[in-house]
Amino acid sequence: MSTTTPPLELHPDRLLPADPSRREISRRLYESVRELPIISPHGHVPPSWISEDTPFRDPTSLLISPDHYITRMLHAHGVPLSDLGVGREPGDGFDDAAARSAFGALCTHWSAYRGTPVRYWLEEELAGIFGVTVRPSAETADAIYDQISAKLSEPDFRPRALMDAFGIEVLATTDDPCDTLDEHATLAADTTFASRVVPTFRPDKYLDPALPTWSADVDRLGEVSGIDTGTYAGYIAALENRRRYFVSRGAVSADHGVIDAVTVILETAEASRIFDAARAGTATEDETTALRRHMLTEMARMSCADGLVMTIHPGVRRNHHTPTWEEYGPDVGCDIPIAVEYTDALRPLLNAYGTHPNFTLVLFTIDETVYSRELAPLAGFYPSVYVGVPWWFIDAPEAIRRFRSTVTETAGFSRTSGFIDDTRAFCSIPARHDMSRRLDAGYLSELVVEHRLPEDEALEAIHDLVVANPRTVFKLGGESR
Amino acid sequence: MSTTTPPLELHPDRLLPADPSRREISRRLYESVRELPIISPHGHVPPSWISEDTPFRDPTSLLISPDHYITRMLHAHGVPLSDLGVGREPGDGFDDAAARSAFGALCTHWSAYRGTPVRYWLEEELAGIFGVTVRPSAETADAIYDQISAKLSEPDFRPRALMDAFGIEVLATTDDPCDTLDEHATLAADTTFASRVVPTFRPDKYLDPALPTWSADVDRLGEVSGIDTGTYAGYIAALENRRRYFVSRGAVSADHGVIDAVTVILETAEASRIFDAARAGTATEDETTALRRHMLTEMARMSCADGLVMTIHPGVRRNHHTPTWEEYGPDVGCDIPIAVEYTDALRPLLNAYGTHPNFTLVLFTIDETVYSRELAPLAGFYPSVYVGVPWWFIDAPEAIRRFRSTVTETAGFSRTSGFIDDTRAFCSIPARHDMSRRLDAGYLSELVVEHRLPEDEALEAIHDLVVANPRTVFKLGGESR
Amino acid sequence: MSTTTPPLELHPDRLLPADPSRREISRRLYESVRELPIISPHGHVPPSWISEDTPFRDPTSLLISPDHYITRMLHAHGVPLSDLGVGREPGDGFDDAAARSAFGALCTHWSAYRGTPVRYWLEEELAGIFGVTVRPSAETADAIYDQISAKLSEPDFRPRALMDAFGIEVLATTDDPCDTLDEHATLAADTTFASRVVPTFRPDKYLDPALPTWSADVDRLGEVSGIDTGTYAGYIAALENRRRYFVSRGAVSADHGVIDAVTVILETAEASRIFDAARAGTATEDETTALRRHMLTEMARMSCADGLVMTIHPGVRRNHHTPTWEEYGPDVGCDIPIAVEYTDALRPLLNAYGTHPNFTLVLFTIDETVYSRELAPLAGFYPSVYVGVPWWFIDAPEAIRRFRSTVTETAGFSRTSGFIDDTRAFCSIPARHDMSRRLDAGYLSELVVEHRLPEDEALEAIHDLVVANPRTVFKLGGESR
Repeated sequence: MSTTTPPLELHPDRLLPADPSRREISRRLYESVRELPIISPHGHVPPSWISEDTPFRDPTSLLISPDHYITRMLHAHGVPLSDLGVGREPGDGFDDAAARSAFGALCTHWSAYRGTPVRYWLEEELAGIFGVTVRPSAETADAIYDQISAKLSEPDFRPRALMDAFGIEVLATTDDPCDTLDEHATLAADTTFASRVVPTFRPDKYLDPALPTWSADVDRLGEVSGIDTGTYAGYIAALENRRRYFVSRGAVSADHGVIDAVTVILETAEASRIFDAARAGTATEDETTALRRHMLTEMARMSCADGLVMTIHPGVRRNHHTPTWEEYGPDVGCDIPIAVEYTDALRPLLNAYGTHPNFTLVLFTIDETVYSRELAPLAGFYPSVYVGVPWWFIDAPEAIRRFRSTVTETAGFSRTSGFIDDTRAFCSIPARHDMSRRLDAGYLSELVVEHRLPEDEALEAIHDLVVANPRTVFKLGGESR
Repeated sequence: MSTTTPPLELHPDRLLPADPSRREISRRLYESVRELPIISPHGHVPPSWISEDTPFRDPTSLLISPDHYITRMLHAHGVPLSDLGVGREPGDGFDDAAARSAFGALCTHWSAYRGTPVRYWLEEELAGIFGVTVRPSAETADAIYDQISAKLSEPDFRPRALMDAFGIEVLATTDDPCDTLDEHATLAADTTFASRVVPTFRPDKYLDPALPTWSADVDRLGEVSGIDTGTYAGYIAALENRRRYFVSRGAVSADHGVIDAVTVILETAEASRIFDAARAGTATEDETTALRRHMLTEMARMSCADGLVMTIHPGVRRNHHTPTWEEYGPDVGCDIPIAVEYTDALRPLLNAYGTHPNFTLVLFTIDETVYSRELAPLAGFYPSVYVGVPWWFIDAPEAIRRFRSTVTETAGFSRTSGFIDDTRAFCSIPARHDMSRRLDAGYLSELVVEHRLPEDEALEAIHDLVVANPRTVFKLGGESR
Repeated sequence: MSTTTPPLELHPDRLLPADPSRREISRRLYESVRELPIISPHGHVPPSWISEDTPFRDPTSLLISPDHYITRMLHAHGVPLSDLGVGREPGDGFDDAAARSAFGALCTHWSAYRGTPVRYWLEEELAGIFGVTVRPSAETADAIYDQISAKLSEPDFRPRALMDAFGIEVLATTDDPCDTLDEHATLAADTTFASRVVPTFRPDKYLDPALPTWSADVDRLGEVSGIDTGTYAGYIAALENRRRYFVSRGAVSADHGVIDAVTVILETAEASRIFDAARAGTATEDETTALRRHMLTEMARMSCADGLVMTIHPGVRRNHHTPTWEEYGPDVGCDIPIAVEYTDALRPLLNAYGTHPNFTLVLFTIDETVYSRELAPLAGFYPSVYVGVPWWFIDAPEAIRRFRSTVTETAGFSRTSGFIDDTRAFCSIPARHDMSRRLDAGYLSELVVEHRLPEDEALEAIHDLVVANPRTVFKLGGESR
């Protein structure tokens, strides 16, 4: 490689504010939490990766193909998703050469990611985990690919070893209510494995009677739970049953990816009537919508009983580009956010359960307009409500700064969820948590330098954000506020 | 108290920007307006406090119980509102011990307010008014309570003496259209009292036929005005009568707390028909909504005639948590904002009265999205329209910075209202006005240091914001632009 | 003039960030692009100004009367639009004295523009183009007016000379589909004129069957194209014909100013049926709306065929104040933005054409909420979609900073359009482009100083923003990325 190849370097002060007085304070705040373990109470790492501890196949299948944050931008620059291994396996002809070529496409389009968090995370992964020292480009792609490939064959780069190196204390996966959770049982029983890997109850497809697959899924729910789901009462009982099963396997939360946050409470007779109609395929769109919104409220009711923290991730138009969805399926990069309303939408739910002592509701959003207008005011009154940290498109430095700026003044720090990485990009987990710590240090430094908060309290606040908030909000036990 | 008790200190540079060149300029700008009198053209201090000049009972009933900014956050942290004296009096068993305990709850949860303006204001009140020198905590709560209690029994801490010490030149209260305004008359007649205390016409409940209390309130309006409100014409005449009465007692504005800003102009016959139906209890929801929106436009028409400045505070879902409202009534902390539209909503009103030379309309919002999109463009064309400063949840440092950043480029400084504290927390008034002056100094310093505005003009601009804008916009006379 | 008259000075560091480390980097970045030619792919300069090269009549008709950015604010301060020459000519009695008086009104209200980009641009124009050295005020107005008047009679201040001095390489005008584009042909044929002046196809009024003028305009379209527009098929063919004519005269884009961005695709038979009803004057409002939205999608289809870049500028309630519109016509300062939705609205269009290799769609907005929520995600997936830079009210320093902050993290730099001035204020063109370059330098400096981007890449990025992005996005040829 030529001597003029630009280097890849991680500056120790990265993401800390420019102003010298703020940077100095930020450094101290960041240093105080830099080495703390990672608590990841919501994410999408496949549990089998951890339980089977199989070496990762190659750089592309680890870093590119499953990460729609990366593939979407390459698609925007004209690279077909199929060239990136999306939805393909070696058996489908996505062989070594194809994987290497995909990696080359990423490196060739490195400049497309300037100013994005994807670039920031990837740099941390390349330099921090794999020891890459040159900037990705068409010229350096092969060498970098070879370097990562070599590492992936080493024992230190198998999933469990990485998890240990990353300092992950808790990792939540996202799971189907009918899942056996056997991988979680295996991991829990393994005394040689220190991390806690917990499942998360994600029942979306069982709760939306408008989906063509809904009735078959409700049948399966009956089979797995051993409770007849032919009636509304059985359907409710089966859901309660599977939630308790998840609790017994260590779950701490139930997650809901819904198009809107509207809740209603139907009379049982009405819910039952619509359920029957939906099972018979005769329910109207208004009816299936009403039942879906009712079931979201039912999930809150069940949370009061079984203690699962309720998290809501609304407002994304999934599979916006139908041709891409038809060819590649979901989660490949063409999900686009829409505006979401929370204040009126959640009122029925919060009137019923908002002050229940066993209830916790974490509200996420990609629609930033609701932070100061709706979410912070809700979290600043209801003891059950916490504002989730920025998610997906807005899990990014400038957006996280806006989040703290728009939420803190009404809800403080303690009514926020603690950082959540929400990622399927396993190797990006430490980079994401580290980014959050740096940004919170930067935000707090502004309060300190403007004499709005003494530094000793800022040190407590950042420690809480990293450790106490996720533990408290997600009922993880251990150190608490 | 141990020697390690953290101190409570007010730094002279608080809230000024970190960058040394900006801080230097900010200091000069802030110093130029620091001592100017307070003009408070919209607020919620009970006029009886001033007219009767009764000593405040105890720290809790002064600082905590009536201030939903404070109680909401304690509620979110699990403290029942009843423990904070909300809706309770000594006669209801909220005795000295209970008041002390409530104050202890605030001090114990002091960390919950980190990064909030409530914390900032309270620090100014504790240190600046009451001379507290230690940080509130469970350990220091009693001593601080005793210190404030002792002060409250001194003559210098009675309402009028405080008002004088605060430098309040004008204080507007918020009043019911049927109020006699006798307290205002008493104060106006008192030549020993220098401040000007003016009433504000707030007719919300007389203008919404959907309220169950509306018809009885309209009856009472008839009694007080001496005009038969059995007809629409009488209803209008009675409102005009009471507005003139308010003007005669010194009122300069009429305030409207509405759920949305939609205006319509009904034909008189149609308005009259709906009025009759609403009085008879037979109006539909569409009809009562139409009449409510028509009446907002009628208020604008009356403003053109009697000169009362029209202020609109829309977009808050009041009493979001019904059980809390049923137990404690309104204004206890569970009001949550919603999105609001102004451009199309106000078009009928502005087409009719937007260029009337006697009309002034100040538009407030908690929905920050409208600052750059709707409010600044409206205020940048209509001679009658001014953008109200941030209010309620967004009367806070970061939000005020966003306000200037999103409004100034389209509407300049002169099309904004001047600072308004909108508070029922009497002792927070100077802290709030001072906060605004510091933040405006900081905003202007950015323009100066980036060579977008010469410093001599920035000095003029901040003086205008503090003095000229509120005087001009609220027709207060005296020095003007 | 007295020796105390405040000076008007342009500081070389204007708009660069305060922090010394950022300012230093910003300077280097800005210097690297400061002298690059201006590419202006969307604007409203009348082509006759350039083709006829007539000297500008006076300062007011050049700088004030046609610029609604300026006239709106003076109107808000009580100056009648007629006093500013809006809609008036010398023949209407707007003589020299009136023009001078209008200029005096601007100078007298100079403080109203503090903190606005209008003030910033005007200072650059006055000082940078006309050599004015004193601050505008009531006292200095006449002298400044005389100074500019004198310049305007010099050959160096005729339109073509100014265009050359401004360094304008490409200038797009905005034109009616029935226009002959003769001025563009004249300019293209003139070998003594170096700049490229290209027309833009702007068919709004031909595409909205709800307009009272629509049917007559469609008739005219038939005449000009020579294709019978009595049928839907003819109407489509005539539009295709005129687009091809525009392409033959150098057009690179078609622009669409629509109230919303909703698209639908009607069956041809249904579109044809509604077309016939609309021509007969019997179409319902729902039908005309459907046809308007269908026609927007048809424009995308035609763009795939003829290659014209499609630009959409939605979400402005035109002529908000009806009395002003009736007296002065459109574009005089009373257009007010509204909220706009893009994700669901554009889905039919993007499902049909979003991945077509010949399609480019640039989405503009004044509703800033959509940058992070909708536009950046769309541009970060669809190869055809680019985020347009801030426009109109938000073509301003703080808003442009928010734009980069909300768009870059999801879409990077390369999925944005490059700067577009969109102005009818000819002399403001260089100031606007220069402002953009300074602000982008400032934004990039933050990435550099926070170690998120190496400076060599920041230099490449700003060069791309100034040169490569507009060339690529608007298919202008020449240097590309």
